[in-house]
Amino acid sequence: MKTYLECIPCFFKQALEAARMAGADYITQKKILDEIAKSIPDIKLSSTPPEMGKTIHDIVKKLTGKEDPYKKLKERANEQTLKIYPELKKKIESAEDKLLMAVELAIAGNIIDYGTRNSLDVEKELTKILGKEQRVIEDEKEYIFDFQSLKNAVKNAGSILYIGDNVGETVFDSILLEEIKRVDPKKEIVYAVREKPIINDALKEDAVKAGIDNFAEIISSGSEVPGTIIPLCSKPFIETFKKADLVISKGQGNYETLSDEKRPIFFLFMAKCPVIARDVNCGVGEIVLVYNHN
Amino acid sequence: MKTYLECIPCFFKQALEAARMAGADYITQKKILDEIAKSIPDIKLSSTPPEMGKTIHDIVKKLTGKEDPYKKLKERANEQTLKIYPELKKKIESAEDKLLMAVELAIAGNIIDYGTRNSLDVEKELTKILGKEQRVIEDEKEYIFDFQSLKNAVKNAGSILYIGDNVGETVFDSILLEEIKRVDPKKEIVYAVREKPIINDALKEDAVKAGIDNFAEIISSGSEVPGTIIPLCSKPFIETFKKADLVISKGQGNYETLSDEKRPIFFLFMAKCPVIARDVNCGVGEIVLVYNHN
Repeated sequence: MKTYLECIPCFFKQALEAARMAGADYITQKKILDEIAKSIPDIKLSSTPPEMGKTIHDIVKKLTGKEDPYKKLKERANEQTLKIYPELKKKIESAEDKLLMAVELAIAGNIIDYGTRNSLDVEKELTKILGKEQRVIEDEKEYIFDFQSLKNAVKNAGSILYIGDNVGETVFDSILLEEIKRVDPKKEIVYAVREKPIINDALKEDAVKAGIDNFAEIISSGSEVPGTIIPLCSKPFIETFKKADLVISKGQGNYETLSDEKRPIFFLFMAKCPVIARDVNCGVGEIVLVYNHN
Repeated sequence: MKTYLECIPCFFKQALEAARMAGADYITQKKILDEIAKSIPDIKLSSTPPEMGKTIHDIVKKLTGKEDPYKKLKERANEQTLKIYPELKKKIESAEDKLLMAVELAIAGNIIDYGTRNSLDVEKELTKILGKEQRVIEDEKEYIFDFQSLKNAVKNAGSILYIGDNVGETVFDSILLEEIKRVDPKKEIVYAVREKPIINDALKEDAVKAGIDNFAEIISSGSEVPGTIIPLCSKPFIETFKKADLVISKGQGNYETLSDEKRPIFFLFMAKCPVIARDVNCGVGEIVLVYNHN
């Protein structure tokens, strides 16, 4: 997905949030915004938003000296979501269609994202989601929640590449992977994470903390952007990406960077801004499961 | 009120909206954002947001060649609000406290603002406001809705300076002025408008269309920003500003530029963004009537 002009105000919002997260004083916050401003005329609108995301977070790191400004937040997100793990499991056990419930929760877990939201009340958000009855898939909504295709693809796939997104969300991913493995323990699953700290995106250690190593091999994609730009990924990851029977991509950043890739991908995320909602043709805040046949 | 760092993303939003309003093509829209970006490092955070507002709209005018991009929108806002004039009048006539209702409506009319909102459904917004029962002024809310002080001030003032804001809102202002004149036809009222087109702010012709000339003398403040920066205003306006027994300031832009002035002013507006809500200590979307004793 290309960068839209509407992304530009949002870049400044993200920069300000990251600057504050890094504990920057007022003068440094302003300096960071000035640096972002200087880079605006050079933005290629054909590039994806996460590329500018990297520029933003590199500037924040450079001017604050903080390599991982979201570290504490990530720890908290992980703890908070592990706390509700038993409740999530119960929800799956009592569901009529366990895979559907696991998929729904995995997408709902995408609320654990500080890149496009300024604050997060995990408990509240989850209560809202968990309190909801299981989704009834209406025909007219199938194009943004194509569960049946995913169900078939999971059934038929021998190898699955699952591209993770944020810390906390990883716990929800873990539950979906557990459900897939429960049905067929022979599936070979690879779970990909980012190479270096960027916003609150999951790294290897975060995936392990979420228990994902029980169900999948965890690898780094080699990505240093809050998304997955294939030409910038590591060779082993690209190999896995090409060969996997099924690729599941989580989160908005992965959608933004992978939506034009020439291979079938299932994108699972919550549409968090009007730009992406327009791109997908859904409402802001909607849970999305799109099957990209490219 | 000074410019906060949170205003910076919003400057880009406003610029994009204005660029589109002026019919700029995609390339020109990007050029406009680039120009805004270049001016960011020069922003003095001690200046008020409307000063940057002028810079933004000057850039839009320069790059699109459109002197008054909001012209059509203003015409529509005026027509739409004149249409509901009879309904507004009825609301006043049936109110227990007519001045209170007129004041409430005048502030509610501040929703007619395209500077900080991207879309507007006047009918819907007004139905919401008009459908509401008359406000009960709770003690704890008095600091943001100090009606009693305004009531006393109106009663005692021989001369009133009323600083207008947006087109459409002018019709609501007219109704309040009519109510003030009805109670005491001897009041001398001056209604001030902007000197040149800026966003959807009212000019002389707009105030006349709203019927304000029936109740007040209409003058230009000399201001070319979407607010009122006293040192940049015309001499006759400054004279009136200093001498008036009572000054009523409408809208967020006037609050932002006048809140530190050293004379008593009543500010009537709707808090449209988190920055101003924090400055006033109220919620976003709240109707505000603050008496500034400076």
